[in-house]
Amino acid sequence: MRLRKVKNIEEKIKQFADIIIFEPQLQKGKWRKVFANDNPIHLEIGTGKGNFIVANAIKDPNINFIGCEVSRSIIYKAALKAQNIANLRLINIDASFLQDVFEEEEISHLYLNFSDPWPKARHEKRRLTSPKFLDIYQNLLKKQGIIELKSDDQHFFEYSLVKFHERNWDFLELNLDLHKEQTAEIITTEYEEKFKEIGKTIYYIKVRIKE
Amino acid sequence: MRLRKVKNIEEKIKQFADIIIFEPQLQKGKWRKVFANDNPIHLEIGTGKGNFIVANAIKDPNINFIGCEVSRSIIYKAALKAQNIANLRLINIDASFLQDVFEEEEISHLYLNFSDPWPKARHEKRRLTSPKFLDIYQNLLKKQGIIELKSDDQHFFEYSLVKFHERNWDFLELNLDLHKEQTAEIITTEYEEKFKEIGKTIYYIKVRIKE
Repeated sequence: MRLRKVKNIEEKIKQFADIIIFEPQLQKGKWRKVFANDNPIHLEIGTGKGNFIVANAIKDPNINFIGCEVSRSIIYKAALKAQNIANLRLINIDASFLQDVFEEEEISHLYLNFSDPWPKARHEKRRLTSPKFLDIYQNLLKKQGIIELKSDDQHFFEYSLVKFHERNWDFLELNLDLHKEQTAEIITTEYEEKFKEIGKTIYYIKVRIKE
Repeated sequence: MRLRKVKNIEEKIKQFADIIIFEPQLQKGKWRKVFANDNPIHLEIGTGKGNFIVANAIKDPNINFIGCEVSRSIIYKAALKAQNIANLRLINIDASFLQDVFEEEEISHLYLNFSDPWPKARHEKRRLTSPKFLDIYQNLLKKQGIIELKSDDQHFFEYSLVKFHERNWDFLELNLDLHKEQTAEIITTEYEEKFKEIGKTIYYIKVRIKE
């Protein structure tokens, strides 16, 4: 996401210590304590400015949401919106380190929204649906855990679909043009809202991992 | 396909007895004799006016092609193009009866091009990728046999993809916008040519069945 660097970012994000968990690896296996309840935890990888996760957290107070965003400048923007929402936290890490932050089966549901497509073959490993990452998700998701993926990028979506297929995970929903005839209200990301306006195709898949 | 009825169709197609095999069930297990060689047999279900299969047969003389088309008026149009092509035959049957016409593993490769999407749920069984038909294909295809499917219909394609996935067949190729950046020459069907011109999305998948 293109964004002007926020000045004095280190100073500024300090004030959000109740929203952004600054040493998340210390909470590994203890996230229920952070939220002070046993509700299921939903994790968004690549939270961006937070539109999607904030709206979801407000809509579903009985689910705990964690937004993971690697950029400090961007997580700051998300934190500005995320104040005073008891069932929402943010973490500022690279997704490669998720296993340092979550115990096996600590997560119920994962969202991958408009992930960087990394189109070049030599960058395949960076794609958030490459085998390395699917191993990580399989580890931190509960049995029968869910992954929902949305993308506007045709080739990234094709790649992701094939990789999910190779795991033989259940395809619960598949939509190759999400907004075309959508009548029900969908909580959108900030990217998605723009793409919807210009009529760009949004691809969607929801899978259930094997036990 | 909308088409004016051909007058005196019964009379007219009789002249094509060398191209249209009129009692195809008599050839079950013996198609290599029809072609007088042991070359692999590729079957297109829903051949329409025959553009695709005629061009393929001319291009690949070492493959035997059979086009299956249920409409007598339409197969007549295909037969007009199919004359004097040694490696091409047509059959005028409903795909439900393919097992009466082909022995187990008699076919190497199947094409489903722009099949009727049958969008209503109560017509699901008529879709050429419903479980009943996949059972038929699995029976008549060789081990590791190939199915290629093209469609302009989003929901039919989503349905087909999920049904292929449920069989756990290998996804060899997947393209959610076939003509967008296509540089290599593709042999198109008559439908496809029209859709391409108006910029309609064409979906494509190539799968390999399990042994």
